[in-house]
Amino acid sequence: MLNIIEGGVTAPKGFLAAGVACGLKKDGKKDLAIVYSEDPAAAAGVFTTNIVKGHSLQVTMEHIKNGYAQAIVINSGNANACVGEQGMKDAREMAELTAQLLDCPPEDVLVGSTGVIGSRLNMPLIRSGIRTAVASLSAEGGRDAQEAIMTTDLVAKEVAVELEIQDETVRIGAMAKGSGMIHPNMATMIGVITTDANISKSLLDKALRETVMHTFNRVSVDGDTSVCDMVIILANGQANNAGIVREGMEYEKFKDALDQVCTHLARMIARDGEGATKLVEIVAQGAINAEDAYKVVSAIAKSPLVKTAIFGEDANWGRIITAAGYSGASFDPNLVDIFIGDLMVCQNGTALNFDENAAKKILQRKEVKITINLKRGTFSDRMWTCDFSYDYVKINGSYRS
Amino acid sequence: MLNIIEGGVTAPKGFLAAGVACGLKKDGKKDLAIVYSEDPAAAAGVFTTNIVKGHSLQVTMEHIKNGYAQAIVINSGNANACVGEQGMKDAREMAELTAQLLDCPPEDVLVGSTGVIGSRLNMPLIRSGIRTAVASLSAEGGRDAQEAIMTTDLVAKEVAVELEIQDETVRIGAMAKGSGMIHPNMATMIGVITTDANISKSLLDKALRETVMHTFNRVSVDGDTSVCDMVIILANGQANNAGIVREGMEYEKFKDALDQVCTHLARMIARDGEGATKLVEIVAQGAINAEDAYKVVSAIAKSPLVKTAIFGEDANWGRIITAAGYSGASFDPNLVDIFIGDLMVCQNGTALNFDENAAKKILQRKEVKITINLKRGTFSDRMWTCDFSYDYVKINGSYRS
Repeated sequence: MLNIIEGGVTAPKGFLAAGVACGLKKDGKKDLAIVYSEDPAAAAGVFTTNIVKGHSLQVTMEHIKNGYAQAIVINSGNANACVGEQGMKDAREMAELTAQLLDCPPEDVLVGSTGVIGSRLNMPLIRSGIRTAVASLSAEGGRDAQEAIMTTDLVAKEVAVELEIQDETVRIGAMAKGSGMIHPNMATMIGVITTDANISKSLLDKALRETVMHTFNRVSVDGDTSVCDMVIILANGQANNAGIVREGMEYEKFKDALDQVCTHLARMIARDGEGATKLVEIVAQGAINAEDAYKVVSAIAKSPLVKTAIFGEDANWGRIITAAGYSGASFDPNLVDIFIGDLMVCQNGTALNFDENAAKKILQRKEVKITINLKRGTFSDRMWTCDFSYDYVKINGSYRS
Repeated sequence: MLNIIEGGVTAPKGFLAAGVACGLKKDGKKDLAIVYSEDPAAAAGVFTTNIVKGHSLQVTMEHIKNGYAQAIVINSGNANACVGEQGMKDAREMAELTAQLLDCPPEDVLVGSTGVIGSRLNMPLIRSGIRTAVASLSAEGGRDAQEAIMTTDLVAKEVAVELEIQDETVRIGAMAKGSGMIHPNMATMIGVITTDANISKSLLDKALRETVMHTFNRVSVDGDTSVCDMVIILANGQANNAGIVREGMEYEKFKDALDQVCTHLARMIARDGEGATKLVEIVAQGAINAEDAYKVVSAIAKSPLVKTAIFGEDANWGRIITAAGYSGASFDPNLVDIFIGDLMVCQNGTALNFDENAAKKILQRKEVKITINLKRGTFSDRMWTCDFSYDYVKINGSYRS
């Protein structure tokens, strides 16, 4: 029994957060967030597989190694990436200053940065931002923190759920940002998940990795994998459940809840993709193995031709089978069925004389599902993406200015 | 000594061509082309690696197996793909009718179709188009044929060169179409190359394969590999050179000329990419092997973020290093240098304080070169692409309507 409740990262017990404007964003919007757990928390993270890694992300990867953390400090407006040794120093100083003010070890503070690559952080602004944020930490600060990590996001992305585990009420809260430069490769844009569950750090890590794989790792906006991607989870045990220390029913309940939280945010990220007018779910069925199912959904979700056709509400399924064809997956084109919504448009690799008006009506909806059945095996996969509009070009033609 | 001369596929001796409007294109533009060699010609082809293959392309792959051909018939406005057994029948009938009118075996006629996927060919229109085209074949018909294979192309793409081989004047002429759904995978969009050189079919095949690899296979407009891609070369020997029958100086001269013809057309295809305002050349240097060099240029050339930034004339090199980072190539981010034109913007993976106005001026040009040096080895590669503009979205949002 899972209830969706109000709030985000501060919904679970013992978490405080703040989001402030320290001046990194030119428009005066919030750009520095801190999420803090009153108690040291078990921590796990999943990070970008891009071999170019932002400096803040590198520091977080170091600090999370011991499996514990107490706070995370994140700035938007600057990715703190590709600026050399100074970038590492700056990220470490962000952790150290936050730790000093919160009276915890610097290694228990994680750091995230998102925004333009190749510009040094303005540390005087960051320092004053950290001081202000620490001073304003509160149990109502989740939404402010969420707003402070947004870049081109139009919609705040947070969610919280409540469930019973070991006769105690456990909560999971989360926030995410991400709108462009999004493609799965073991991670997505920045996500922070908090929970008051009492769970071992190894099971927390396992639950996060498995959940990310089919939620955040199944979102594609533009096929670009960023250098700053991370999803972090902190579990502080304040729910006082006996403790999830082995796999079994209680672990599965926790994981199901985590899955719903991540699925909710992953869909929000796709729906709010840069310039998006629609959420598009791509489903591949009947693949001969899991890898082929992934290749097919990934190629279709990345294809600019598929995505512009959906923007234009044009049932151009030829582009769907074309993308499947070059995906690298093994299948017989003469077996393929394709559906737009519930409408079959191609059967056994051959065009059907479908009702174009019915197809158009389906494509006019805010959520569009595309299904391709290879009819070769039993494996399936699913990916969320969005359509590709004029606004994507507009947003990305002048991102730095 | 190579001279660029007027004309295209009918520049070499003994080739006739025609392009007519048979009614497949709704706007009344030319949509059916025939290129004919007076003598049977040695023939070679390179085809899409997409496992979904258009019906006309499948027939061409059958007919070219024996290494000879005398004519190619191509329609635009309809890809003749994914329409089932009827598509195979229609493609065969196109070859048969053309062969009958030209008095040659059907297996010596190649067939190409390009346009919308999933619609049956209107064969009454095609038949009358073939009759009209055969009746109007002429040595001046190269340009008409080129226009008849265009789809969203804005610019006619043809070129011809002349050189001396074995004391005889040899000509190579070519035409190509291609503007969207373009990404290399052993082929590009439709290209037809003619030559009056006397060359063995095995060397013709070898020269074509090697040349396509670093010319047409180094063009990316949108990362989509079409189901109808083919490059065909016909060599009819009418130049009366003694015959290129082994590798050596004369073969190299021929191959160099073929290389220049294909390079010219490949650059034209990228420059005329759907919605393109600029030709962009991506160069990777210092890779540890050829495959890595290819991965880097391919990832950068495909990145919508890189391409929208170039459209916006924004020197956002962070997106270039990001794309290299997720390309799968192995390199040390801390060694990477990046140049926009001749301007170094990133050295050893670290931002330089470069002159933004100088960078903007470079990006305002019609041709932009991006160089990334991994400084790990001696391998390099190069790819042509274009920027990504509002018009790409516009063209592809309503392609079928």
